[in-house]
Amino acid sequence: MIHLRNTLSSMALALAVAGPALAMEALPEQPPVPVDNPQTAAKIELGKQLYFDPRLSSSGTVSCNSCHNVMATGTDSIRTSVGVEGKLGGRNAPTVWNAAYLSSQFWDGRAATLEDQAKGPILNPIEMAMPDEDSAVEVIRAIPGYVERFQAVFGGDNPVTYDNIAKAIASYERTLITPNSPFDNYMRGDKKALSPEAERGMKLVQDVGCTACHSGPTFAGPATLATGQPFLQRFPIFLDNEYVSTYKLDVDPGRFESTGKEADRHMWRVPTWRNVALTAPYFHNGSVDTLDEAVRVMGKTQLNIELSEAQVADIVAFLESLTGEIPQQTMPILPMTSGSWIHTGN
Amino acid sequence: MIHLRNTLSSMALALAVAGPALAMEALPEQPPVPVDNPQTAAKIELGKQLYFDPRLSSSGTVSCNSCHNVMATGTDSIRTSVGVEGKLGGRNAPTVWNAAYLSSQFWDGRAATLEDQAKGPILNPIEMAMPDEDSAVEVIRAIPGYVERFQAVFGGDNPVTYDNIAKAIASYERTLITPNSPFDNYMRGDKKALSPEAERGMKLVQDVGCTACHSGPTFAGPATLATGQPFLQRFPIFLDNEYVSTYKLDVDPGRFESTGKEADRHMWRVPTWRNVALTAPYFHNGSVDTLDEAVRVMGKTQLNIELSEAQVADIVAFLESLTGEIPQQTMPILPMTSGSWIHTGN
Repeated sequence: MIHLRNTLSSMALALAVAGPALAMEALPEQPPVPVDNPQTAAKIELGKQLYFDPRLSSSGTVSCNSCHNVMATGTDSIRTSVGVEGKLGGRNAPTVWNAAYLSSQFWDGRAATLEDQAKGPILNPIEMAMPDEDSAVEVIRAIPGYVERFQAVFGGDNPVTYDNIAKAIASYERTLITPNSPFDNYMRGDKKALSPEAERGMKLVQDVGCTACHSGPTFAGPATLATGQPFLQRFPIFLDNEYVSTYKLDVDPGRFESTGKEADRHMWRVPTWRNVALTAPYFHNGSVDTLDEAVRVMGKTQLNIELSEAQVADIVAFLESLTGEIPQQTMPILPMTSGSWIHTGN
Repeated sequence: MIHLRNTLSSMALALAVAGPALAMEALPEQPPVPVDNPQTAAKIELGKQLYFDPRLSSSGTVSCNSCHNVMATGTDSIRTSVGVEGKLGGRNAPTVWNAAYLSSQFWDGRAATLEDQAKGPILNPIEMAMPDEDSAVEVIRAIPGYVERFQAVFGGDNPVTYDNIAKAIASYERTLITPNSPFDNYMRGDKKALSPEAERGMKLVQDVGCTACHSGPTFAGPATLATGQPFLQRFPIFLDNEYVSTYKLDVDPGRFESTGKEADRHMWRVPTWRNVALTAPYFHNGSVDTLDEAVRVMGKTQLNIELSEAQVADIVAFLESLTGEIPQQTMPILPMTSGSWIHTGN
């Protein structure tokens, strides 16, 4: 059972500063932390090592950071990601920045937590492609520097487990926050933080209906959603337009692929707007190259409206105001082994 | 024309501490710096950004760091490197750590400088695979944050050039130094820094003849070699042993491949011993998994001797004493673009 530490204080902040009518709020300082995986400095550092360690892939060449680059956009900035042996994934890599605030993970919300999410790509045959959990654990267990660190962080007789690998990675990911976007500064009272265009865009996304779904601190759904409760919507809704065919927006069946339920066909988690100006290309298939085109597509496919170019420009200006500060980080130093070659690939 | 700043002081240090008879010396504090590419903090930071930027590859997925990982061994720790689209290279990635001290670059010494070396993989069709220099320059020039930084570092009307990309990367690489190995501490007077095994190994590598080639501060050749003067040796020399066939050591024709000269067939640059305990797998084709086996192979193929297991263990202990300190680094933050997708691949 996972409890959220910060839900109440986040809501209070939202009510106090923005008011419920806006359904917009500044990014809370800290994301929720599950009670069974508290943050510690040593666990975060271990998680950072694992996040950057390509030995967790069958080829020894792909790490979490390969597709979720924390020196940049938190994505790989390509249409769909490339895994081991040049294999091409089916969906665009979501940004890891502020993922800790989301109530579910993956495009279809099939993982409840960052911990659950971290376990996926390592075993996905077109991503990191480890044959099974035990193989991943074996790789880490064969590196004495890791065993020491897992012992220090998790204790017990058998600290190197797949669960603990995921816990450490998730703890690191909970530090991947981009605060102080112009929008956040605006919400905290600096009314000059937004340009007139961005202010018009902020009003417009509410007036035309974008924020019916893109609400809350990450603009990915209501702030009140509990962890594990995905905020799902159908996409595309309006099919009779050229965007759907040009960008092949209705080919992927969405959440149906993981649940097999007809009701989940073309259902998707509402994606965050945080840093969306940086995370081109857009949509689950990465088919749209620019933010202005993505805004046009959304207007037509979700609201059945044709936004004017002036409206698009204002909305883009607002979305650009949601770009936060990428934090300075130190590089991890990966535990190394002397004189033996330990992974399976190549 | 490139001049070496530190050659004289390095030599003086070597003579003073180790004496020429040993042909061994501690790692000089700073590597040579070419007069036409002086080190500056801004250039080093720009070079670090470029070193980590996968946009310099045709697929947008491969950076310098993909194969020369500065959070670990300075290599990719696999047999031969993986480039764009999962393409497999023909040779094992040499470590970037302390490459700045080497008198030539690449396994066959075909690049005179780090600047020359940096230009290779970006255009190599099985590595980063940019179609030509102009394409690489175009990618960088399309990113306003880079244009600003190149302007600040290099000035002039046209600061983003392929030469300047290489200069910045090389400047960063000149900071990739691993000081204070047990051996270095020993050479500076701490006689307890080496174990008895390592001390025996140090004597042994001189007695049996390893240091005829593996000499100088990096154990990659004489300290007196000017930049651009590769220290080449034939490998393998003695062919009538099982190692040559088992590990396919004579398949790759070495420097012949780049020069086409018969005299260069099976000629290779002498590789560094610095951090060699970390840089498995071994040899140009990455065919040997462990350091002890690599030592056996070298004894047989280069000196035609069968080292005893005790001798191998002592030599390995000495080689392990050449593992230096991996420096703490900050992560670069790559210049990002808003709302447009700029590279060519995928």
